[in-house]
Amino acid sequence: MFKSVILAEALRDALDAVVSLSDEVKFTISPDGIKLKAVDPANIAMVFLDLPSTAFEYYKADACELGIDLVRLGDALSMADKGENVTIELDAETHKLKVGVGSLSYTVALIDPTAIRKEPRIPEIDLPTSATLTGAQLRKAIKAAEKVSDHVILGVDDTIFFMEAKGDIDSLKLQIPANELLALRSGESRSLFSLDYLVDMVKAAGKADEVVLELGLDYPIKMRFQINKNVSIIYLMAPRIEQED
Amino acid sequence: MFKSVILAEALRDALDAVVSLSDEVKFTISPDGIKLKAVDPANIAMVFLDLPSTAFEYYKADACELGIDLVRLGDALSMADKGENVTIELDAETHKLKVGVGSLSYTVALIDPTAIRKEPRIPEIDLPTSATLTGAQLRKAIKAAEKVSDHVILGVDDTIFFMEAKGDIDSLKLQIPANELLALRSGESRSLFSLDYLVDMVKAAGKADEVVLELGLDYPIKMRFQINKNVSIIYLMAPRIEQED
Amino acid sequence: MFKSVILAEALRDALDAVVSLSDEVKFTISPDGIKLKAVDPANIAMVFLDLPSTAFEYYKADACELGIDLVRLGDALSMADKGENVTIELDAETHKLKVGVGSLSYTVALIDPTAIRKEPRIPEIDLPTSATLTGAQLRKAIKAAEKVSDHVILGVDDTIFFMEAKGDIDSLKLQIPANELLALRSGESRSLFSLDYLVDMVKAAGKADEVVLELGLDYPIKMRFQINKNVSIIYLMAPRIEQED
Repeated sequence: MFKSVILAEALRDALDAVVSLSDEVKFTISPDGIKLKAVDPANIAMVFLDLPSTAFEYYKADACELGIDLVRLGDALSMADKGENVTIELDAETHKLKVGVGSLSYTVALIDPTAIRKEPRIPEIDLPTSATLTGAQLRKAIKAAEKVSDHVILGVDDTIFFMEAKGDIDSLKLQIPANELLALRSGESRSLFSLDYLVDMVKAAGKADEVVLELGLDYPIKMRFQINKNVSIIYLMAPRIEQED
Repeated sequence: MFKSVILAEALRDALDAVVSLSDEVKFTISPDGIKLKAVDPANIAMVFLDLPSTAFEYYKADACELGIDLVRLGDALSMADKGENVTIELDAETHKLKVGVGSLSYTVALIDPTAIRKEPRIPEIDLPTSATLTGAQLRKAIKAAEKVSDHVILGVDDTIFFMEAKGDIDSLKLQIPANELLALRSGESRSLFSLDYLVDMVKAAGKADEVVLELGLDYPIKMRFQINKNVSIIYLMAPRIEQED
Repeated sequence: MFKSVILAEALRDALDAVVSLSDEVKFTISPDGIKLKAVDPANIAMVFLDLPSTAFEYYKADACELGIDLVRLGDALSMADKGENVTIELDAETHKLKVGVGSLSYTVALIDPTAIRKEPRIPEIDLPTSATLTGAQLRKAIKAAEKVSDHVILGVDDTIFFMEAKGDIDSLKLQIPANELLALRSGESRSLFSLDYLVDMVKAAGKADEVVLELGLDYPIKMRFQINKNVSIIYLMAPRIEQED
């Protein structure tokens, strides 16, 4: 069995962080909460979402796996007004998901979990540096970079977190010293990333009070943050190869 | 003669309720106010609009019929700011409509009333049940249904007003018991309607404090409401044939 | 050398008034401020922008000329939040413009000033009448005219400022007597103008407390206003030939 009540926008924010990478996902449900992992079709970025039972107003579940189309579930959630709760439960008979919003009851068909793209394993990577920014700072930087280029360099240079974007004609630099960051693990790192993916990631991360970026040298980036207090999101994204000028 | 002053947005709201069905209409003007009837080209839905003289700040008119292009009149009305009155009068010499908004004076050519699609007769239909909702409740339900399907079942089941929409995969149910409605004439009714039309209708109805839906069994729906206190709008729409699953 | 600090939105408003006519312009920089002139490719309208040093939070410059792509500079300015200052300085070494917004530093390549379309000379014209309106009044009138036609007559008839727009079917008149204007130099004037250009001009002028329109008989219009207190903008636009009906 699975029955839960949650603030609609909290769940929507959490799922929005996943849907840009993959819209058919497997919810791994346990008595402690819901976890899901997804990877994009190009295998460039992964997301790990942890919705603990404490993120819900009400939560009661046995262990099970549900294949869910996030676009359909998102449509159901969008029927809720601001501040309104939704009830989500598994109808054991029909094996469909019932989403209740006020007097409305929405029935969402499930997907066979075995038909869903295999979940990624979390690769073990060791990233030597990290910088902690506010979500708003990060979003602003990424939006600025987007105007100049379609990829961006992120890194740490001793005690400074930096970003560089080079367009054909114009270029953009961001430098934030340790004392203007929320935290910094100093060192040397520098990697090139696709802005396409980062733009989607900072949509969710922009709402977080703090976002931890872990960075290496031509190595993946790990972006960690919490939204709506109890929802944890981790993104992992492969670097692109930096061309010599 | 015809001369009137009215709050621009009150007239705009009223005409917006008509324009989705027909943009060339005949205003039947009398000393008591303006009435108009329109039917859409497919003969599926009709609207009856009653703008009594009390809906105006100033109103003085002899009986006459004016053929009016609602899009042109709407353009003139859109020049008014929020809370601003418009003066609408017939220029007897040029036989054109003069719309005054502040220092602006807009001249709208009239259409020959005989060139306008014939007005519908109000069919006499007897609808056994009715449910009275707030405009906001109705709009929310119709918007939810639109995400699932392009048609919707509306009806009354004893003391419950219900709505059902079935998509290829997902489905939506709404059930509002009598005690959560503003009023209910209980009984049995159930008819299928096109959401295309309902979506346009609830744009106007969504602003009403209360909307009366009169329903029968595979029979037309009658939707009645008032906006801006004195403006009455009645929609009548034919049902669609419900297919067996 | 050239270094300045200015409220981002003040500079953006000023440059927006120019970019619709020309996006590659020459900044004529002096110790007293920045001036620029531009004419549109069709030679119909000219703009003269005067950004005195008092419009800046900080300003220090030697005389020089910089060729600037307003779209690129506008992109850099759009990175600033509401109320945020930008630092704009010439990097003497690379001969590029550096635009700093908080921790972000944007590098904009300059254009060779000799490659920029020659600046217009200010023609000496003597306009017999003028009317001074609020920016909001003017914008509202031009927006109304746009719904009826693609050109508009502006003029003064003795002590009344008037506007006329004629569509194929509908027409619009505006008449503002001297006592409802901020100022009027009475007389007789009447000229026809393209609304395409006026619509762009009133985007900037709409923000001004007062806009002076100088008008003649089948003669150019001069539109003068100040925005953000110290920024002066003058538009000059050729009339179109009025056809007999």
